[in-house]
Amino acid sequence: MPTLVLIRHGQSAWNLENRFTGWWDVDVTAKGAEEARAAGALMAAKGLDFDLTFTSLQTRAIKTLNLALEAMGRLWLPVEKHWRLNERHYGGLTGLDKAETAARHGEDQVKVWRRSFDIPPPVQALGSAYDLSADRRYHGIEVPRTESLKDTIARVLPYWEGRIAPALRAGERVLISAHGNSLRALVKHLSAIPDDAITGLEIPTGQPIVYQLDDALQPLDRYYLSER
Amino acid sequence: MPTLVLIRHGQSAWNLENRFTGWWDVDVTAKGAEEARAAGALMAAKGLDFDLTFTSLQTRAIKTLNLALEAMGRLWLPVEKHWRLNERHYGGLTGLDKAETAARHGEDQVKVWRRSFDIPPPVQALGSAYDLSADRRYHGIEVPRTESLKDTIARVLPYWEGRIAPALRAGERVLISAHGNSLRALVKHLSAIPDDAITGLEIPTGQPIVYQLDDALQPLDRYYLSER
Repeated sequence: MPTLVLIRHGQSAWNLENRFTGWWDVDVTAKGAEEARAAGALMAAKGLDFDLTFTSLQTRAIKTLNLALEAMGRLWLPVEKHWRLNERHYGGLTGLDKAETAARHGEDQVKVWRRSFDIPPPVQALGSAYDLSADRRYHGIEVPRTESLKDTIARVLPYWEGRIAPALRAGERVLISAHGNSLRALVKHLSAIPDDAITGLEIPTGQPIVYQLDDALQPLDRYYLSER
Repeated sequence: MPTLVLIRHGQSAWNLENRFTGWWDVDVTAKGAEEARAAGALMAAKGLDFDLTFTSLQTRAIKTLNLALEAMGRLWLPVEKHWRLNERHYGGLTGLDKAETAARHGEDQVKVWRRSFDIPPPVQALGSAYDLSADRRYHGIEVPRTESLKDTIARVLPYWEGRIAPALRAGERVLISAHGNSLRALVKHLSAIPDDAITGLEIPTGQPIVYQLDDALQPLDRYYLSER
């Protein structure tokens, strides 16, 4: 029975400061690192184990994975990193304080940007402070200038279909360390959650979410590991 | 011009306790972790950068790599882990205190085991405390029961030829985090060091060794990064 575990990175510095982060490469806090270690210890204590792991190109997800694997005695597992697992790109909101943004644009507008399924935030200006289009890590890919959740899902799923799902079908036990919205993309796909419901689904940091799948990768069960 | 950097893992708990380690999976000490971070900071300060990184299946080398990459802002680089980069297998000496071993077998015998090119230590008994032949990480490979340096070189070089050298020839800048003897294997090969000289070549922990290679992967220069 294919097993898939999803984990959202531990608390980041900008989670704490309540700023829009998106693709900006913010580190985990000391608390976030501790969440990651605790997640690894919990997975080991519950007898979970893996053959293959995936993460984004962002430090907070990679570190969360590394710290969790270390706590499991599994640092030696293969790790594949891909930009398609990155967080949703927050466009021109990247770097802004959420409260300030609400004061400037109104609570309602910010809620639309944060919670609409298909309305992206304003595009990020090229050359602006948080523009990553020239970052070497994204060489050869077109860095988004903004993304709706729908856009994020559209670029996450090809990686799921092309790389992760085949590994699960081949019997590999998979752990994915990623971000609130790239994980929403996977949960929406696996659990067939409607467009208008997925934006409200909160994925807590550092909490392993376990999927037991059938051979067609349809979910038989989904639960927080801490609750079983 | 292909660039290759080799780094031996930072101090491990058993380096400190002066015990034969080999394939046993001992962690780095706090000092070893600091050595790894300092190596990464030095590489960044000297303007070194990489496209691809390699390490063994052993925690001390993987952590050294991860900590160095983090210090360079390069955690997102691909990391490939392979057992062929593991430390020399110390056979029946694994876990023994070096001074005790000398007291029991004589200094001269221990010197032969440590410094001979082709005489391996006694084989490790199957099922003994440090036997890793049933460790899941080595599933599908035949875990050595002991190795001379010659044996180690013989299993390191196919990985060099099959995976690392082609990457260098393709223009990728490569960082390898590994162990005293798996790195001796590479240095011997690249710098054509004779059998009787390689066993005395000390590779210090946490010191990046830079190779500038020509297109045929012949070394034009080899130096400790800290000395330039």
